[in-house]
Amino acid sequence: MNPGSRGEIALISLIEKHLGPSASAAEVPFGDDMAAIPGAAELIWTTDMLMDGTDFDSRSHSWHAIGRKAMAVNLSDCAAMAAQPVAALCAVALNNRMSLEDGAMLVGAADAFGRSHGCPVIGGDTNSWDSPTVIAITVIARLPGAPILRSGGRPGDSVFLTGPVGGSLLGRHITFEPRVREALAIRAQLHPRALIDISDGLSLDLWRICEASRCGALIDEAALHAAIHPDAALRSRETGRTPLDHALSDGEDFELIVALDPAADEARCRAVGLRRIGILTPERELRMRHDDGRTTPIEPRGWEHFR
Amino acid sequence: MNPGSRGEIALISLIEKHLGPSASAAEVPFGDDMAAIPGAAELIWTTDMLMDGTDFDSRSHSWHAIGRKAMAVNLSDCAAMAAQPVAALCAVALNNRMSLEDGAMLVGAADAFGRSHGCPVIGGDTNSWDSPTVIAITVIARLPGAPILRSGGRPGDSVFLTGPVGGSLLGRHITFEPRVREALAIRAQLHPRALIDISDGLSLDLWRICEASRCGALIDEAALHAAIHPDAALRSRETGRTPLDHALSDGEDFELIVALDPAADEARCRAVGLRRIGILTPERELRMRHDDGRTTPIEPRGWEHFR
Repeated sequence: MNPGSRGEIALISLIEKHLGPSASAAEVPFGDDMAAIPGAAELIWTTDMLMDGTDFDSRSHSWHAIGRKAMAVNLSDCAAMAAQPVAALCAVALNNRMSLEDGAMLVGAADAFGRSHGCPVIGGDTNSWDSPTVIAITVIARLPGAPILRSGGRPGDSVFLTGPVGGSLLGRHITFEPRVREALAIRAQLHPRALIDISDGLSLDLWRICEASRCGALIDEAALHAAIHPDAALRSRETGRTPLDHALSDGEDFELIVALDPAADEARCRAVGLRRIGILTPERELRMRHDDGRTTPIEPRGWEHFR
Repeated sequence: MNPGSRGEIALISLIEKHLGPSASAAEVPFGDDMAAIPGAAELIWTTDMLMDGTDFDSRSHSWHAIGRKAMAVNLSDCAAMAAQPVAALCAVALNNRMSLEDGAMLVGAADAFGRSHGCPVIGGDTNSWDSPTVIAITVIARLPGAPILRSGGRPGDSVFLTGPVGGSLLGRHITFEPRVREALAIRAQLHPRALIDISDGLSLDLWRICEASRCGALIDEAALHAAIHPDAALRSRETGRTPLDHALSDGEDFELIVALDPAADEARCRAVGLRRIGILTPERELRMRHDDGRTTPIEPRGWEHFR
């Protein structure tokens, strides 16, 4: 659910003030990728709402692709906790011009993609209206062990990515693979200290780990260069911004940022597809180390609502 | 969540065909008021999405009242299963003209009302857009015993209401009290056979009990007359329809329809506020018994999307 993601930080903080006291007292703190379920310590849950024109565009994306994405963003939250998704509810407000078949395809695609990760749609709520289509999916997941939070990072930890980033707007923001299986392998083999999925941008989501873990991070420019997706270069030709800038600030890559003990086994890291991009630091700021040894500050940037 | 409620029956049926096989195999069947959580038999969950202009009107209702309703409809689903709500997630797409304070009040009111029933908001997803505001809440509840489904009714069972019905559009559709405490008392003291909340209309929701229980129902006109809300008479002056018609087909009363063993203790029924309106019958149709002894068919009618 990434409450706090999408950058509506002021609203989230205002909502927290409006909520009663116990919301922040759970084992999983308010604002992490998923929430605890009281009285069921091994279960956590998350919700994500997607809107036509914002998170997808029904003029260019198929309802099948949209339903798949609506499930995939929730599964990515499960990956960010290294949890196994088990079931979903799906609530929709369908634009009245949609056919019943399109509506069924939307929900059916969410279900089919969920099932490929062990997470069928088992209920929901269907509505129709004249405004753009909205789909909100809620997923419950099972924790194979303790929750892996954003807050477990320590200075000196190595920082990894599960895959290349940048330029997701060219299509991967719809078709991405949530890193559920990778996250479960990382949990089992590498005992990660902190995890988050990149929903809003590498720099912004890495900064969320830093804030929760009360530390900073130093990204190695050469290492990040090797982890830039080819789409970032294509996108850079359209925008005039550098591929590196796209890699740092494009949202919806849905790769994981993983903080590991610096002694973590390198061969195992490679085996699960992790690529190292930097380290956590005691100084509470985000910096880039360039090839010439200089370091410069990075502004945590990415997709935010309410700007 | 009332999947199948709001009458989008064709869509629900089409969605069921698009879903994989296990959706209908759970202890709580697809289409009841809440869904089972795999591997956690004592927990069930539900989701409801409300849209500005359809389920509320932000020009005339306060954001506080709207947030309360968004929680209350989910709590009513818990009542319909005689389950104790324990926690909620809240996803919103806020119209861009809303202030942050209004957004926080919306979610805060949902949380405050949830808390009054033991169900705080513990997470969610916040978004903004140019279209009307949407709020989708998901609630998890704990079953104190076996799930009480729509399907447990038997011919001969007495049919009760927890309160008067009709004319909710005059205001009660926003301010109604979900019958959570009443449902838990009914479960503990009267062992109900079948339960549903009236979200779409007495005749339509009673018919859902009948369909799930493979029976029919006979409503006693005089008894129903005594259970017509004064608002139904007021509304009838605006519409020209009879108060009885409003009582039968107005949606969003959110009183419970309860099927009990005919031997259920009358004093206990009165103590929890139940009023008897009829019986379940072997013939699979809905009928009204008039004061002169005649019976006439009732068409199951109420609020439906996709008509």
